[in-house]
Amino acid sequence: MAPHPLAILSEEEINLARDIVVAQHPHTVIDFREIYLQEPPKDQLLEFLAIEHAGRLSPTTPRPLRLALCQYDVIGSDRVPSYEETVVDVVAGKSVKHHVVGKEHHAALTVSEFDVLVERCFASPMFQQALAEFDLPEGFEVIIEPWPYGGLDLVEPNRRFFQGLCFAQDATKKNPDVNFYSYPLPLIPVLDAHTQEIIRVDRPATGGKGEGLRDQTFKRDIIGHCKGSDYVPELLPEGTRKDLKPLNVVQPEGPSFRITNESLVEWQKWRFRVAFNPREGATIHDVWYDGRSVMHRLSISEMTVPYADPRPPFHRKQAFDFGDGGGGNMANNLSIGCDCLGVIKYFDAVITGPDGTAQKLPNAICLHEQDGGIGWKHSNWRTGRAVVTRNRELVVQFIITLANYEYVFAYKFDQSAGITVESRATGILNVVNIDAGKVSEYGNVVSGGVLAQNHQHIFCVRIDPAIDGAKNSVQVEESRPVQMNEATNPNGNFYKVNTETLERACYFDAAPELNRVVRMVNPHKINPISKKPVGYKFTPLATQRLLADPNSIQAQRAQFAQHHVWVTKHRDGELYAGGRYTLQSQKEVEGVSDAVKRGDSVSDTDVVVWSTFGITHNPRVEDWPVMPVETFQLMIRPADFFTANPSLDVPSGKNAASRVVGSSECCRNAHI
Amino acid sequence: MAPHPLAILSEEEINLARDIVVAQHPHTVIDFREIYLQEPPKDQLLEFLAIEHAGRLSPTTPRPLRLALCQYDVIGSDRVPSYEETVVDVVAGKSVKHHVVGKEHHAALTVSEFDVLVERCFASPMFQQALAEFDLPEGFEVIIEPWPYGGLDLVEPNRRFFQGLCFAQDATKKNPDVNFYSYPLPLIPVLDAHTQEIIRVDRPATGGKGEGLRDQTFKRDIIGHCKGSDYVPELLPEGTRKDLKPLNVVQPEGPSFRITNESLVEWQKWRFRVAFNPREGATIHDVWYDGRSVMHRLSISEMTVPYADPRPPFHRKQAFDFGDGGGGNMANNLSIGCDCLGVIKYFDAVITGPDGTAQKLPNAICLHEQDGGIGWKHSNWRTGRAVVTRNRELVVQFIITLANYEYVFAYKFDQSAGITVESRATGILNVVNIDAGKVSEYGNVVSGGVLAQNHQHIFCVRIDPAIDGAKNSVQVEESRPVQMNEATNPNGNFYKVNTETLERACYFDAAPELNRVVRMVNPHKINPISKKPVGYKFTPLATQRLLADPNSIQAQRAQFAQHHVWVTKHRDGELYAGGRYTLQSQKEVEGVSDAVKRGDSVSDTDVVVWSTFGITHNPRVEDWPVMPVETFQLMIRPADFFTANPSLDVPSGKNAASRVVGSSECCRNAHI
Repeated sequence: MAPHPLAILSEEEINLARDIVVAQHPHTVIDFREIYLQEPPKDQLLEFLAIEHAGRLSPTTPRPLRLALCQYDVIGSDRVPSYEETVVDVVAGKSVKHHVVGKEHHAALTVSEFDVLVERCFASPMFQQALAEFDLPEGFEVIIEPWPYGGLDLVEPNRRFFQGLCFAQDATKKNPDVNFYSYPLPLIPVLDAHTQEIIRVDRPATGGKGEGLRDQTFKRDIIGHCKGSDYVPELLPEGTRKDLKPLNVVQPEGPSFRITNESLVEWQKWRFRVAFNPREGATIHDVWYDGRSVMHRLSISEMTVPYADPRPPFHRKQAFDFGDGGGGNMANNLSIGCDCLGVIKYFDAVITGPDGTAQKLPNAICLHEQDGGIGWKHSNWRTGRAVVTRNRELVVQFIITLANYEYVFAYKFDQSAGITVESRATGILNVVNIDAGKVSEYGNVVSGGVLAQNHQHIFCVRIDPAIDGAKNSVQVEESRPVQMNEATNPNGNFYKVNTETLERACYFDAAPELNRVVRMVNPHKINPISKKPVGYKFTPLATQRLLADPNSIQAQRAQFAQHHVWVTKHRDGELYAGGRYTLQSQKEVEGVSDAVKRGDSVSDTDVVVWSTFGITHNPRVEDWPVMPVETFQLMIRPADFFTANPSLDVPSGKNAASRVVGSSECCRNAHI
Repeated sequence: MAPHPLAILSEEEINLARDIVVAQHPHTVIDFREIYLQEPPKDQLLEFLAIEHAGRLSPTTPRPLRLALCQYDVIGSDRVPSYEETVVDVVAGKSVKHHVVGKEHHAALTVSEFDVLVERCFASPMFQQALAEFDLPEGFEVIIEPWPYGGLDLVEPNRRFFQGLCFAQDATKKNPDVNFYSYPLPLIPVLDAHTQEIIRVDRPATGGKGEGLRDQTFKRDIIGHCKGSDYVPELLPEGTRKDLKPLNVVQPEGPSFRITNESLVEWQKWRFRVAFNPREGATIHDVWYDGRSVMHRLSISEMTVPYADPRPPFHRKQAFDFGDGGGGNMANNLSIGCDCLGVIKYFDAVITGPDGTAQKLPNAICLHEQDGGIGWKHSNWRTGRAVVTRNRELVVQFIITLANYEYVFAYKFDQSAGITVESRATGILNVVNIDAGKVSEYGNVVSGGVLAQNHQHIFCVRIDPAIDGAKNSVQVEESRPVQMNEATNPNGNFYKVNTETLERACYFDAAPELNRVVRMVNPHKINPISKKPVGYKFTPLATQRLLADPNSIQAQRAQFAQHHVWVTKHRDGELYAGGRYTLQSQKEVEGVSDAVKRGDSVSDTDVVVWSTFGITHNPRVEDWPVMPVETFQLMIRPADFFTANPSLDVPSGKNAASRVVGSSECCRNAHI
């Protein structure tokens, strides 16, 4: 049986595509970036899915081409690469499209480039000379944390650069996981990736409040005022706490979900597919509830982390964590019992090595059920009878590590037909050196000599709704006050609910003062009870938008971060809020702001809704050395999609495994 | 050993106080409302707690008086009650204070008054005559749902009124829990509680869009277009779903918490007391973390639910769910395995019967641990080692039923020293009759003939901080954009964090566009690392404020709902955001708005912070017949209170009870 059109490429398919690309470029060096499924054109995909949902799939069903998108640099004799893309038909075994991206854009980074930066730094006399300006304590070693270069300054040549953030590691502790972030060094070497040379070593300021943007105030004893602060348990001075008793999630009859065909998930009336790509990580496709279509595709489209320290070159600390290196590439191997509780299903992913060969990424996605507290409850005070259900959730989770930070992403499905996209920020703050005893208006001192700079994390979730079909409209609903008046509001208690259907692609912001809600509706299907179009809704999260000056490079390349909601018409391949090519970008190219500029009609058509939200993160001391999760939830909920509460039929029996403290009663026949 | 000064009154203490009040009013009829602990004056309490925390408690330690606050109506010969309060010293066995509240205010309602309303309705010819205008189907019975009268119109005499919302119940189903809310009747009888007479039967309009506020358009066959919609499992036409497998929370070594002295909770470095009173339900007192004081008192102070249908008399649908009837009085008996999972500790409460005698309210509060997902994680991409902890939470929960609605309230403590106050709204929508086939701009039709009116739920959480001591200040922190300029922001990436300490009692609103954060700090204790005052912070929830016209009665009596944050100086007994006497109030009296008007200094003193948030609830069809929970979380977090992440020492071992789907591996030696 041929793979499903949404199934990720197998290792064999990737290797086949790789070989075709290699053959296409004889006598050249190719640096591969990614090889992954180019999802079929949506019209072809919808045709296939219609046949699938009608139960009429057969070996002769026409299928969209099975395509591998191969992204790679061809290294020329001048060592300036040509960024190219080839699309390979992996069934026919041939290239169907070849495209030179153009030298103004840069391919996503790879970990192997990081290795080059580190190696070239240590080989660089310029870097060694800079290092020699400091005295490091006996037994400390220099660590270079490779970073994308951020937004290219307007005056710079558009070479491919990388920057290194430098730290010292206390090797005397003889533990490779000793926390080197505790000892920041004020050196930022810059690599020209074309020549593989260190071209500059920037020396950021380390001063405090009232000192200049470029003042060089540091001492030779650069980390004498720093203090080791570790998080691995064996290095904690007092060890771990002893009074935490086990809490186990036990599912004696196994999970309630069913996985077939590798990626088709069925659970509690939900049916959807899980996929994965190196850029977005886990994606969700073709989501149905109780036989009705809800979403075509759901993904974390982009995130950017701009830092607010104005001292050059810190303005170049701005990562696009999905576009620059790939949220999928950075996905963790999630091992059992560590990241989740209960009965867990893991999905493996496949990524691409620098030579283009497939590399298995085991346990990249996990799927499990969890208890989400009370689902609904009512007590009849007349009879004393309470009916209460628990809210069981199905979680599709992946976790990415981006150098110091981690993000835990989850798509959560519930029994009330709600979908929640959750993001948790954790990991280690990105920090820089600050002179002894000083404080700064650019961040917070979180440990001796360690300044955690103020920054933002701004996410964008892409929602391709399919509310009872592909043709949808978007409505903005607001609850507006109405002045007291005899005719319509004699007692002043009335407020007006205003609903407006969007006609053209546009952007707008969260407006909690108006209770602004976004409704994605099917204008052709009317709820038989409320007489309103069936839909799903969400309240845009009223979080602070990008703070950088709109004319700054930081802002120009992150237009998506400047408004909370963007509404566009679907176009194949238009998946990336911050633009297709973010590495070292100066502006957002082919991102959601460009898509809106087309001014497409978005009424009764294939519409896409983008939700931007984030956190202004002015670090606390409590965020050091590893930050407790900070959680965001975008709640997408049915709104007059059904004719009643979809979780009404969830059983309300008691959980017989629960017990009263001190009691030995613990029934084994738990029935919920 | 004498009870702790914060321990709730025992049944014996309540009965003793009752007897003293009865003896104080010979030859009169007394309708008791509440008898509960009058918490000691704060200065005396702090003195006692200081001795307690110093470990110097002894039988001779001076104790604040143990006082019972008794609230009751003395029924005079004209049947107009005198609302009075007596404070009884239950150790000395004597009244220490007696106070006549005044006839402009009304005592909280009691369930026994509800019984009177129902009984008088059925005995009322006026009501019977109104009912006779309708034909009910064979076997349907009339149900009267008693409600507070809402805000008294300015022109009305200030008698004590109750209103009844009427429904029909399908008795042919022979199930006392058949959902009568499916069949609303457009009749609202009004009781004068003094004369115990039905003085009026209001006839609200049942029309649709474009029809007048008072148009009487209904038909004799008043519920012929309605349809039964049930939630008790045995009445569901298709029964409950069969594919949900059990998910058990098992704690083989028992819980990690310890309860001593009845109400002292110790868990994971936290130490606090749980109390309960008939008005606020569960309250949290004297909260310490790792030997340091964090909060003096935490409570749900008030909530109001104003309805937005302008058709008289619906403007009178505005409940003050804590002030009118008592959030504690309405608390559910939480039975095992139904409301919570795992190992559960229940606390009983004691409330007061109409004759003043103590009535045990068993299992009114539950306490249990839960898993809150990943607590923190970091993977070292160089070594491949991941350290990950789970976020274990301790939950103190109570659930109240207010006629149709329920609210699940929880105080959640976590290992990162955070406190989250959570509120979940569920239960049944309050609904009215709408003519067949019509829709309305005042709400949503959620079932045949059933209009769920638009409304708001607005909560207020009262926070009495004690950040390393009772004298605290409040700071407002904002992150503000800065225009690009050569001197301070050459690349445009800088934003300024502005912190202002409040000098005088005031109110302000959430401002997500400025990332406005409230910090409660101790100005005398400086964090040794960041050099900032130690504190706890929260981000006010940017939810819509009260929509009613500011001149409306609805708004006048709910000033607290018009701003998100109120900062006041502590005053003994000033606990109720919406005022001390809310039943039938025309304005907020002795509420938080009055407290602010004093203009007290709030810097470096005993400060109280009030956080208002809520939901504008324009009902969905999916909210019928029982609404899936809608959840709010106020997150109170340490901000430079500690010198590092307080959960750093949480063990990071694997949970050995978790397993991979399809695998039989399930280790029994779970160690976390």
